[in-house]
Amino acid sequence: MPNGRGLTPQSEDFSAWYNEIVQQAELASQSPVRGCMVIRPYGYRIWELMQGALDGMFKATGHQNAYFPLFLPKSALDREAQHFEGFAPETAIVTHAGGVQLEEPLVVRPTSEAIIWPILSDWIQSYRDLPVLLNQWANVVRWEKRTRPFLRTTEFLWQEGHTAHASEEEAEEETRRMLGVYRTFMEDWMAMPVITGLKTDSERFAGALRTYACEALMKDNKGLQAGTSHNLGQNFARAFDVRYQTEDGEHVLVWSTSWGVSTRLIGALIMTHGDDAGLILPPKLAPYEVVVVPIWRDDEQREQVFEAGERVRVELEKAGVRVHVDAREGMNPGAKYYDWERRGVPLRLEVGPRDVQAESVMAVRRVTPEGADRKLPLPMEGVAGVLRDMLDEIQDESLAAALARRESATVRGLEDYSEFQRLMETEGGFAFTGWCGEGECEQQVKDDTSSTIRVIPDEEYRSPNAPVRCLCGEPSRYEVVRARAY
Amino acid sequence: MPNGRGLTPQSEDFSAWYNEIVQQAELASQSPVRGCMVIRPYGYRIWELMQGALDGMFKATGHQNAYFPLFLPKSALDREAQHFEGFAPETAIVTHAGGVQLEEPLVVRPTSEAIIWPILSDWIQSYRDLPVLLNQWANVVRWEKRTRPFLRTTEFLWQEGHTAHASEEEAEEETRRMLGVYRTFMEDWMAMPVITGLKTDSERFAGALRTYACEALMKDNKGLQAGTSHNLGQNFARAFDVRYQTEDGEHVLVWSTSWGVSTRLIGALIMTHGDDAGLILPPKLAPYEVVVVPIWRDDEQREQVFEAGERVRVELEKAGVRVHVDAREGMNPGAKYYDWERRGVPLRLEVGPRDVQAESVMAVRRVTPEGADRKLPLPMEGVAGVLRDMLDEIQDESLAAALARRESATVRGLEDYSEFQRLMETEGGFAFTGWCGEGECEQQVKDDTSSTIRVIPDEEYRSPNAPVRCLCGEPSRYEVVRARAY
Repeated sequence: MPNGRGLTPQSEDFSAWYNEIVQQAELASQSPVRGCMVIRPYGYRIWELMQGALDGMFKATGHQNAYFPLFLPKSALDREAQHFEGFAPETAIVTHAGGVQLEEPLVVRPTSEAIIWPILSDWIQSYRDLPVLLNQWANVVRWEKRTRPFLRTTEFLWQEGHTAHASEEEAEEETRRMLGVYRTFMEDWMAMPVITGLKTDSERFAGALRTYACEALMKDNKGLQAGTSHNLGQNFARAFDVRYQTEDGEHVLVWSTSWGVSTRLIGALIMTHGDDAGLILPPKLAPYEVVVVPIWRDDEQREQVFEAGERVRVELEKAGVRVHVDAREGMNPGAKYYDWERRGVPLRLEVGPRDVQAESVMAVRRVTPEGADRKLPLPMEGVAGVLRDMLDEIQDESLAAALARRESATVRGLEDYSEFQRLMETEGGFAFTGWCGEGECEQQVKDDTSSTIRVIPDEEYRSPNAPVRCLCGEPSRYEVVRARAY
Repeated sequence: MPNGRGLTPQSEDFSAWYNEIVQQAELASQSPVRGCMVIRPYGYRIWELMQGALDGMFKATGHQNAYFPLFLPKSALDREAQHFEGFAPETAIVTHAGGVQLEEPLVVRPTSEAIIWPILSDWIQSYRDLPVLLNQWANVVRWEKRTRPFLRTTEFLWQEGHTAHASEEEAEEETRRMLGVYRTFMEDWMAMPVITGLKTDSERFAGALRTYACEALMKDNKGLQAGTSHNLGQNFARAFDVRYQTEDGEHVLVWSTSWGVSTRLIGALIMTHGDDAGLILPPKLAPYEVVVVPIWRDDEQREQVFEAGERVRVELEKAGVRVHVDAREGMNPGAKYYDWERRGVPLRLEVGPRDVQAESVMAVRRVTPEGADRKLPLPMEGVAGVLRDMLDEIQDESLAAALARRESATVRGLEDYSEFQRLMETEGGFAFTGWCGEGECEQQVKDDTSSTIRVIPDEEYRSPNAPVRCLCGEPSRYEVVRARAY
């Protein structure tokens, strides 16, 4: 049941809470096309901030953007057998265009390997052309049966990196490097801690040799795959005959990678930080880091508080802070507070006649740290610097809070299967357990508990005393992270 | 026949020259999908610079970005009759998805009015919701019979602005404002002069009340429509029943606009400035404004010139100049000069051992102004400031040169039809003539001469002594700009 703010509490129905946030914070809305959402300006601005940060990191690691066609010839998709099997069932097909039936139907790209590799085979001739380090910002379409805004939509926006290398080692290095870039972005920008590691064979990208992923834990204790980086080996090079001439004159297949994150990250952001009052945005990804709410009763006061609000705005913009003055008429300050809380703005500044008199403003944080005062009066003099520091603190605290939450929802060393089953059915969370390495066992646990192996975690995440037995009782070959997941 | 640089001279075959530039400057290449090009990194970087500038101007005029679905239900397209007639014949249709035939086929958007307006009808309730000022960066698909890279491709990238207003005046103001934004961008960034004005009924956007356009003249004296801004009146509001409640409680239809520019602008840039040696880029849109070419014979020299080149690079980057050091091994400096000339880099810096000795660098402009020296030695000390100023000069000179060229290819006051016909068949260019205002006459001239009325120009462009007769001999109602065009 929605609370006084029109939001269902998370504890009551997390899924309803999520849908209401998306709606009420005006992040996205439904469209007349099944499974396709509209990303509204407030949601799209978050995506633009994400894009800006990621794009900078891609360029800093030597990548260039390019753009490949939306359509793939249907025959190109089936050149790599596993890739075809993985994607063909969920594609959208163009059969008619320009008023006539096409000789060969076109597939709307579900991912771009099958159009990029035939083209790169022309671009790549010699070892001098390598490495090729490309990225594309684009829309892709996967015909999903059940969709949810941001988390799983028929059309979504993403970036897809595609690279070609002269050696297996370089390709593996690139795959790991980009996984690291994702992790840095998720932690430093999204304030969302992740566990990085290797996917099992059953969860591997269709056509990849190895898939690495960043796995996060949402506030309902369900896991979410936030980004993937694939070492494609020579699979696509072989399928599309992409060769380069070595210094010795040999013609050999290239090694390739691909890696991507999507608008799904906005869903991850919502479910990592939000609370019963609404969205909570880490400052670095907040469309507005600060919202100024002027408070007045009469025209004279109005003039004073707007003048003061304007001064603050100019100072903050000079300091590189994204700020908005909420000048809406006919709406009381309390309603504005609610509105911006629901939209997750990290800091609100109240400017009333008494504040103007005292040459100060009242700062209110979206999230009050334990033991701190909810409201903090700040002198106007030097306010931009103080707020800039506060925003940096909030960013750090957001990550620390999310990390503490994840750790409190993480269990290690479980070997008893019935205890594991109970855990997945009740609290959920991340469970570090053993795994015998058998696909059958993996499937059985999935069938029994609806949980999956999220990753075989990278070394730094592993337990000092990892379980010696798999949940099935056999000796463990890998420590794995299991969870029910989106 | 290609010249020593592998380029066909413009005077011999402009169209071949264009295709070769696109290929050799690595701006775009063909794809296995008919009519769809691949935008290569160097070309895409130009698009990113264009996007950055335009996006800033859109935001400065109060617009926000959003994202609407790639697909339209087929039935939505036919809600506005003229719009349907205009676009239906060139659409691509998805009939199957997720392995089954769709109940209602989906149209891949040729433009987004038919998906945006049904959605905005939900968002807009009251006069308080107006104006709605949206922009979308997206790909669109129009099934073209004859395609050319950038100028006309089946899929292209663009931005489309969509706005809703409370009154006809506001909509008209917005339409004109965005036309002005385009003009400013084209002149100040692309260094491409344009004539703004109104399209005739026959060239109007399908569904619009009035279409305004920016028209440019390419180096082969053919016109090119570079951007359009449409006052849609209440046509789409009526078709999709988009109403708002006025302060008096009435429910009335909104007034709307749309406006767009596309990757076609890259084609316009090529054909506005390029010469027989290749591309020429105005500094503001050059992926690299400066390329440093180190020159060396032995390892000792190599170390010296790279050290000097690196110092210059760091200084230039500090000054906000996009710079690249061409460190390719096994390629002589002359080949590098050719390469960067072909790619249109405004300034090249040669750094050889003697330059290092003299604490100087040699600057060479892509285009040498008349009477100026081609090569200019510059002291290392303070080189960034000097180059920054030179780049600003080059930007200004590019526009001045393009303007002078257009003016020299513009004829005013023509009333004699046979003279006009001869002009269109020989020199081409812009002809300011009279027009009786009749569609039949317009069509006849088109049939006879392959020229069209580009625009009824805005007042500032009109001739002091405009023709009093149309080409058909009847009294002129409008002065118009005619040309053969892309």
